[in-house]
Amino acid sequence: MVAADNLRRIDSKTEFDLSIYLKQRKQLCEEALEKSIPVVYPEKIYEAMRYSLLAGGKRLRPILCLATCEMTGGNIEMAIPTACALEMIHTMSLIHDDLPAMDNDDYRRGKLTNHKVYGEDVAILAGDALLTYAFEYIASQTKNVAADRVLRVITHLGRAVGAAGLVGGQIVDLESEGKLDVSIDTLNFIHNHKTAALLEACVVCGAILADASSVDLQRLSRYAQNIGLAFQIVDDILDITATQEELGKTAGKDIAAQKVTYPSIWGLEESRLKAQKLIQEACEELESYGEKANPLIGIANYITARKH
Amino acid sequence: MVAADNLRRIDSKTEFDLSIYLKQRKQLCEEALEKSIPVVYPEKIYEAMRYSLLAGGKRLRPILCLATCEMTGGNIEMAIPTACALEMIHTMSLIHDDLPAMDNDDYRRGKLTNHKVYGEDVAILAGDALLTYAFEYIASQTKNVAADRVLRVITHLGRAVGAAGLVGGQIVDLESEGKLDVSIDTLNFIHNHKTAALLEACVVCGAILADASSVDLQRLSRYAQNIGLAFQIVDDILDITATQEELGKTAGKDIAAQKVTYPSIWGLEESRLKAQKLIQEACEELESYGEKANPLIGIANYITARKH
Repeated sequence: MVAADNLRRIDSKTEFDLSIYLKQRKQLCEEALEKSIPVVYPEKIYEAMRYSLLAGGKRLRPILCLATCEMTGGNIEMAIPTACALEMIHTMSLIHDDLPAMDNDDYRRGKLTNHKVYGEDVAILAGDALLTYAFEYIASQTKNVAADRVLRVITHLGRAVGAAGLVGGQIVDLESEGKLDVSIDTLNFIHNHKTAALLEACVVCGAILADASSVDLQRLSRYAQNIGLAFQIVDDILDITATQEELGKTAGKDIAAQKVTYPSIWGLEESRLKAQKLIQEACEELESYGEKANPLIGIANYITARKH
Repeated sequence: MVAADNLRRIDSKTEFDLSIYLKQRKQLCEEALEKSIPVVYPEKIYEAMRYSLLAGGKRLRPILCLATCEMTGGNIEMAIPTACALEMIHTMSLIHDDLPAMDNDDYRRGKLTNHKVYGEDVAILAGDALLTYAFEYIASQTKNVAADRVLRVITHLGRAVGAAGLVGGQIVDLESEGKLDVSIDTLNFIHNHKTAALLEACVVCGAILADASSVDLQRLSRYAQNIGLAFQIVDDILDITATQEELGKTAGKDIAAQKVTYPSIWGLEESRLKAQKLIQEACEELESYGEKANPLIGIANYITARKH
């Protein structure tokens, strides 16, 4: 019986085509994002917001939110405003991260960074506006979800983005710059907050919208934290092994900045193994969902396999 | 009867002591703000947030929110998380506004600006964290208010802060810099968005929390837009007439930057008259609330009388 079950799951996994799934979902997200910010007076700020928000990217965060909402019994309609908000927040963090006072990056997703096109002042404001709009968008656009659940989504997302999450991770990252004795605990803190917290929010907010149980939320939180850390390890590996063309951003920056990374501590091969182990453990959290977990399992595996 | 009513109102106005009221309410806000952000690891970001949030100031925004909530039938407890959030957002806008890429100010409220103490990178992140925390704080801390009303508060506040509000005003302000032919319409747009929108949100959000009627919300919105514009006119006047010591920030900046201001268009005396007229019209919106409007009337008059 167990063997038959396993076989059926393997079959269904074969049937599930991740690349078609991702392509369709990405298209859905692009359309929703395109519609989310109309251009009105004063046009410059809306254009600056749209420049970075609509600059492509894999849209993994909104896709994760939609996938989790569906897996736990909700639907796309419920989750699409939160999915868009997650991408707005991710984009805002990239715009501010690229500023001269921060990482001072000229390219992002193969295009000039926001401040290179619009100036630093507008880029700071475009980030502020995207961050604000994300919360406004969830509060005003979410349909067919009880208001108290929407408030829980806003609370969870706020925690993932602010000083207790993404911003806290960036602060420790800045403090660690140029230091050669960064511990693995500090490195984990940085990435658990800078990268994993927002990915966790994508997944957990999708499940909150679908009114998932607290057991579900805990499972999904562990899944997301694992893929978040794996995502960062792979990012560090790609910074060493990929070309600028593949990345769409400056390659080899970590080495140039003498930054402590997972490969610099563990080496490339061990880093790859650790990432795979994290992904495997992430997928084990999803066993009880059966075939419905195919998208989340596929995305987890995609993270270690990606080339950019 | 009308005469007697007027007399009673004048008496009660005499009895209402604005300076005691503002002092007590400021104390209340200081205590709530002090408690709102505990310092945990990574300490630097919380310290940077607290440095600017707890740097004094008149706390007019949170006081307006509390006063309006009470006037329209709510209580302080309902409104205190939103009141704190409004001050967090105001503080965040000052931190980002003072950055070298924006106004490049070294002093604010008589203290070094955030980036002068913590560096530009931390100041950008402290602003982001305060903005995020404001929405999280409203969503997680508001008690005894129906969830759908809390969502309306978040929506209204988001609109007041983002591209359709404060940020939009800042963008037009930046575009107008160095131009000598800025029209009165553009100047009004800037200040209706850069200053009045957040003051309007203070008042309207306080009323939403108290479940005020849409007629009340419209009246209060007009009151707040008027005092917001008056506030800016008085700010422009003070930039010319007050000393740096009185202002706690660099004085005479507008003239040095050849900035078009209300006094530069209307002259000082006409500007004073216009501010007074706006305040008078603002107070007329409050007639139906009787004595309960004393705090809002007092604050409106305080705006034109203030020296810093």
